[in-house]
This record gives sequence, C-alpha cells and structure tokens, in this order.
Amino acid sequence: MGKKHRFDLRDFEVKPESSINLAKWSTKAGKELLAKDVADEALAADVAALQAAQERLYASNRFGLLVILQGMDASGKDGAIGHVMRGVNPLGCRAYAFKAPNELELKHHFLWRPMAYLPERGMISLFNRSYYEEVLVVRVHPKFLEPQRLPQLSESKRSDQKPSESKPGESKHSETKSSESKRKKGQAKALDKLWKQRYREINAFERSLASNGTLVIKFFLHVSPEEQKQRLLERMQQPEKHWKFNPRDLEERKLWPEYKQAFESALAETSTTWAPWYVIPADNKWYARAAIADIIAAKLEQLDLNYPEVSDEQRALYQQ
Amino acid sequence: MGKKHRFDLRDFEVKPESSINLAKWSTKAGKELLAKDVADEALAADVAALQAAQERLYASNRFGLLVILQGMDASGKDGAIGHVMRGVNPLGCRAYAFKAPNELELKHHFLWRPMAYLPERGMISLFNRSYYEEVLVVRVHPKFLEPQRLPQLSESKRSDQKPSESKPGESKHSETKSSESKRKKGQAKALDKLWKQRYREINAFERSLASNGTLVIKFFLHVSPEEQKQRLLERMQQPEKHWKFNPRDLEERKLWPEYKQAFESALAETSTTWAPWYVIPADNKWYARAAIADIIAAKLEQLDLNYPEVSDEQRALYQQ
Repeated sequence: MGKKHRFDLRDFEVKPESSINLAKWSTKAGKELLAKDVADEALAADVAALQAAQERLYASNRFGLLVILQGMDASGKDGAIGHVMRGVNPLGCRAYAFKAPNELELKHHFLWRPMAYLPERGMISLFNRSYYEEVLVVRVHPKFLEPQRLPQLSESKRSDQKPSESKPGESKHSETKSSESKRKKGQAKALDKLWKQRYREINAFERSLASNGTLVIKFFLHVSPEEQKQRLLERMQQPEKHWKFNPRDLEERKLWPEYKQAFESALAETSTTWAPWYVIPADNKWYARAAIADIIAAKLEQLDLNYPEVSDEQRALYQQ
Repeated sequence: MGKKHRFDLRDFEVKPESSINLAKWSTKAGKELLAKDVADEALAADVAALQAAQERLYASNRFGLLVILQGMDASGKDGAIGHVMRGVNPLGCRAYAFKAPNELELKHHFLWRPMAYLPERGMISLFNRSYYEEVLVVRVHPKFLEPQRLPQLSESKRSDQKPSESKPGESKHSETKSSESKRKKGQAKALDKLWKQRYREINAFERSLASNGTLVIKFFLHVSPEEQKQRLLERMQQPEKHWKFNPRDLEERKLWPEYKQAFESALAETSTTWAPWYVIPADNKWYARAAIADIIAAKLEQLDLNYPEVSDEQRALYQQ
C-alpha cells in the first residue's frame, strides 16, 4: 500500500513511561488540514482505505483490531465512530457503548466485562468508552467502587484504626476527628494503590491481546471546556439532539479538573508500545474524524495483509 | 416522512398461508429500476433515509429491528449488508453471520442460539443466514441433526420395528430389506413432523419478538443457478474474492432442487403478518440492494418514530 498518510502518528502518540500535561496538547485542528472541505475529502479517502483494509483483515483471518475511544462527554465519540466506520461492512465490525456496568458485571473483575466484546480474528471491535472508565469516572467518583466490594477496600480494613491508638489525654471530640483523618488518609492510600494496580492489569491484559494478534489502538478525544459547553447547549436546542441531553452531564462538567487529572494519569501509565494512546485534538469534529480514520488506516496497512491464494488443487475442482 | 418509495412491498411479499413455486418468481431486475446508474442513485437515497431512520430508532428507544437474509451461496447476502447498511452508525447496528453451530449451540434448542444476537430496543440486528438454516441446510442434509440428539429422532425410536413383526415365512434377506424400508419410512415421517414443528416454533418465536417491539423483516435473495455459477467462478478468478472460494459450494450446487424445495416450504410456512418474507430478485446485485434498502426504509418509516422532547424542567437546569 504505497498510500501516503497525511497525519504523522508520532505527533499524536503518548510516549510510553512519560508524564503528560493535557494543557500543553492542542484541542484545535492542526496544520495537516486547513479547512473542513479538505478534511471531508481526506476523510472520504481514508474511509475508502479503511473499507479495503477491513476486507483484507477479514479475508486474511490473522489479526483482529480493537479501537478504544475515550473522552469527556460531548467530545465526539459517537460521531467519530459513525463517520470513520461508514463504508465498513457491518459483518466485519462491531461497536459497543460501555454505559454504567450492570449488577453481574459489578460482581466480576473489571476486565471480565470487555471479554465478550473483544474482536475475534478478522474482526474490528470499537469501544465507545471502555474498561478505562474504571480508572476515569470511577476515580473521579470513588463511591462507584462500593458495589464492587473489593477486598483491598473492605470495611474492616478501612476502619483499621483501633480506638486504643488515640492518646488518653485527648478529648472525645478531637479523638474522633483524628481517627477520622487517619481513616481518610488510609483510604486515599488504598485508592492510590488500586489505580496503580489497575494500570498494571490493563497493560498486561492489552499485552496479551497484542501477542495473540489483536491490534489495539486507543484514542483520547481532547476537547476544550468551552467547546464542550457549546455542544451540551446544542443538545438542548436542536430537536434531533434532544435525546442525548442528560442533566448529569452538567454536574460532571464541574469536575473538569478531576477528570483532567484522571485522564493524564491513565494516558501516561497505559500508553505502551503494544497499545499506544493517541491524543486527538477534538474541538473541530472534521479534523478529529479525519485524523482517527487516517491513523487506523495507516496502522492496518502496516500489518501488510494479503488475500489468501486459491491452490491448484482447489482450481482443479472447477474443471470437473 | 412524505417520502415516496419506488418499490411496492406487495410485489415481493410471500402471502401468509399460501404455497409458493420459486420458478414463477423472477430472479431478474424489475421495472422499478431500468439500469445500474438509476439503481445506485436510488440506493444512495435509501441509504440516507435508512441512516436517518436508524438515528430516530436509537433515540426514540421504543423498537428494535431484526433483518434476516437468506439465499443460496453467492446470492449476494454479504454484499447486500455492506451496501445497504453503509452510513448507518455501527453503534446502532450489529451484523451476525450464522456459520455451522458450535458444540454448545448443538446441545441447545435451535432457537437458543440467536437469543444473544437479538436487537435490544433502539438497535438493528442483521442476520446473515439465521436460525432458518435449521429448516434449510439441515433439511437438505438430515445427518446434521445427529449431533443435536433430538428425542423424537432417538435411535431407540428409529429402530422401533421389533423382529417379531416380520412374518415367519420370509427369508432372512427380505426380512432385513423390509425392516430397512420400514425404518426409512418411519424416519421420513419423523423428519416431516420435525420440520413442521420447527416452522411452528419459529412463528411463535417471531410473534413474541414482534409483540415485544421488534420489527422482523426477512429477505430471500432469489438467484438463478446460472448466475450463481458465474459468481462462484469469479471467486476463483478474482484475487480479492479468493478467500470466499469454498470447494464445498460446488458440491452444494448439485443439490439445487433439494434446496429449492426446502426454501419453498420454509417461505410458505413462515411468512406471517408479523414477520413476512420478501423474495428479492437477486441476479442483478444493484437491483437487489436497492430493493432491500427501500423496503427496510419504508417499514421503519411506518413506525413513525420521533425524537424525544426535552422537558421544561430539564431546560431550566441550563439556566442555572
């Protein structure tokens, strides 16, 4: 595939084992595309390339492709899936939206849930949100851990400070206060340990996927708070976007700094050579879609997939 | 949706409780479209209509859509799915190819297998082949029933003819012969009963889907033996079609009359008001695709789906 790609993967890739400050990553369209009409042309070309690559992926039956999309509310995940995968035969491509986990899923390890949706050889799976929510929204709202009943966060461990620990001279009031602050510190430590453990588990999980022939590509749709606000407003104003309107999104908006921190930590800790993260400037939807399509197409072309051959024996059968 | 549809559903629908002779149904493009270029335009319009209808289906969250495609090998099922569903967001649409059942599936009732792939409210499922294979390929090859170990076909029942039944004057040889022919007759009867039972079960199954809000649309892609031969040859001659080449397809071709009979019986017995079959002339791929897209779009528009409204209370939240 001698096709030249417009985007340079390296401009978007989060380097493994590095820290990341999202404030320094642009949310605006870059120099690769000057305007929407050029982007639409580029997207169309990449969509066609993707369609061809998917057919070879399916026919050659050697690799699978897992694409993960994460980003704040209204960062354009649904639309990206629709526009990038347009033209790909639904027989070779499945998309899953990870909403809040159900009761059964909560009773399992957080990496149990995606198992059923992983791409088999020859197939593409798209995750709209993913198991990464377990180190993102759950990190911002640790109360979501409660129904998971994790042993390392069990009630007995959390209230580990025995009353005997408090000094005898302290008043009843300050005693409660000090034990409360100790309890909180212990909890924060336990949580910190938990996120690190989950990063390690995710990295090991994705590594085993990769070594079994699954190409893993992860996109963070990087949108500015201003652009997000604009899009949430549109959801209320445009009748065909009403159904996407969710009052809770407004509450979540207030936690922007907490989300930013959770994303920065997750991106830095789980961008690996076998499953890299790409930060996509997402304030311009046309730019984000073209970039995503281009990166997926380029990665698939690197696999150098070919159609299987018909053997002479098979050919002979037709002569009969 | 004031949109005019080019195809008249009634021209393609198999009337419930009627018999059908496929030789009398055309396999060639009909008068609705005179040539490929007109068909491509019509298909593009229907694909856009389908895309809009799918978004309303998803947003209104009241109905699901199950589309079943059946037809001989190389009748164009895969291609139809690709071309008709192009443009529909993969988040709202999943396709499943029903290949040979696995061991676990064989140990269950034949209607257990599709359960996991049914469309939830708001979604589209496409079945490329389906549970209908259980009254089609399995009817043509009753040996495929053996691993299903059905009680009504159990060994003890099949060899129900006791030796005492044979007349004392008969030679050992003719005794075996007569009991063999009796056994075969009994088996044919049992099989006949089985297909009728499966038709009944399918009809009841689809009726319960329909009453729960699933629109069921079934297409039979009607291709001529000559056109099929041409397409199987292409699979060998065109490198990008090699992977679809399967020597077994050539063997199956010889059973055309048996398949024709199985299809005629299934179409007649399972075309119902709640889940009708449409016979689509499929010798011209462009015609078949346009017809399928048009029929699905028309049926979805009949549901009269609307986007949900934003309430005044929700609106007030934005003013805060």
